[in-house]
Amino acid sequence: MAEKTCFDCSIEPQEVDFTFRATIPALGAAILNAAGLDAHGRGFGVDALNAANCSWVLSRMAIELDARPEQYADYRIETWISDYGRVLSTRNFTLADAAGRIFGRAVSQWAMIDLRSRSAVDLSGVGREHAEAIVAEPSPAERPRKIRSVAPTETATHRVVYSDIDFNRHVNTMRYIEMMLDMMPLELLTCEAPVRLDLHFLKECRYGQTLAIGCERHERGALFEIAAEDGIAAVRASVEWR
Amino acid sequence: MAEKTCFDCSIEPQEVDFTFRATIPALGAAILNAAGLDAHGRGFGVDALNAANCSWVLSRMAIELDARPEQYADYRIETWISDYGRVLSTRNFTLADAAGRIFGRAVSQWAMIDLRSRSAVDLSGVGREHAEAIVAEPSPAERPRKIRSVAPTETATHRVVYSDIDFNRHVNTMRYIEMMLDMMPLELLTCEAPVRLDLHFLKECRYGQTLAIGCERHERGALFEIAAEDGIAAVRASVEWR
Repeated sequence: MAEKTCFDCSIEPQEVDFTFRATIPALGAAILNAAGLDAHGRGFGVDALNAANCSWVLSRMAIELDARPEQYADYRIETWISDYGRVLSTRNFTLADAAGRIFGRAVSQWAMIDLRSRSAVDLSGVGREHAEAIVAEPSPAERPRKIRSVAPTETATHRVVYSDIDFNRHVNTMRYIEMMLDMMPLELLTCEAPVRLDLHFLKECRYGQTLAIGCERHERGALFEIAAEDGIAAVRASVEWR
Repeated sequence: MAEKTCFDCSIEPQEVDFTFRATIPALGAAILNAAGLDAHGRGFGVDALNAANCSWVLSRMAIELDARPEQYADYRIETWISDYGRVLSTRNFTLADAAGRIFGRAVSQWAMIDLRSRSAVDLSGVGREHAEAIVAEPSPAERPRKIRSVAPTETATHRVVYSDIDFNRHVNTMRYIEMMLDMMPLELLTCEAPVRLDLHFLKECRYGQTLAIGCERHERGALFEIAAEDGIAAVRASVEWR
């Protein structure tokens, strides 16, 4: 049975907005870095998988933040894998402040793809092989919610450029989050209320594509759908401040 | 007489492109984080200045990278202030790999502004007050070059959104760099040749403005000029791969 992995972090000057608190994408990036570093450390990181022509792809993710820590604040990310399904593995995260109080939780679900066929690999074998990496502790938050349909009240467009793409050559998760949050008013983005984000990745978006980001505004949040020129939903998401 | 300050860093999964090497903006962000953390540690960070209604503003910066380190590579940033002029202070940086070999150098020049008048503060007093923070070692690269005029062969536009702005409520340096580099071809952005960036910040760009990013393409680089609706140059820059 494995132990959770801990990463000690602090909020750096480049990670805060004008309220001097970490932005949601900055904390999201720290969470995903922890995932990448832990997988690497355990020998099943993207680098090891690439050698076998495979890669991890984030399928769904939920992030809950009760507070956004201030610049220079120390915090700790704990991460663990709670299970492997046939298609998705579940990686969990808690974020705790210097006093040990948990202020953030995240649940991510990952598929493994074959880089030649771009199709999902059956994880049953991986689950058996890496069974010792599983920590028998349930996810710290409700798993990512399904978002079935979005009726945009507003649409923005964005052409995918070099700085948007990741090691898999598709748009990186944080850029999707930024594209969506950038459609929300500053009052919500900089408020101190707890926030929950749910993200569903349905299809890759790639360099040079022009994306339409549809936003269905609600009073304290929104639903989003991102699609490339073919109009097929690539990402659906929701954000809600309490 | 002060010592240089060292920061031990490593290239995180969120910082690499599909060549699995750190992007130029990711290394630039690490450099600016080192500046912020060192100033904070010495008691003249943005947080301390804000209490006196002042802030540091980056005026010019040059970055030279001989190589872009690979994912997970450890490296060390050393930073020191070499002098205070009447208007600008000079902060220097070297980036060294795990073997101690320097692969990156940067020179930055900072003004202090009064947040009420948005005008520059005379640094003579600050220089005397913080004389013990100066390290008598010259800048490790040629100081930021003046870019006098740019004749764009191509222009992109960008509306300034929440994720573009920093603690000063203006567009953050890395976003300017990304906007400009995103106009360059992938072949140059991902090549392994040494690269030099020169940046001149002439005027703040703010939330909600629409920026025009003019690019004068050369064979192995480009000149850039960014302006908001008033057409007055806000940033001039050059990038050149050897």
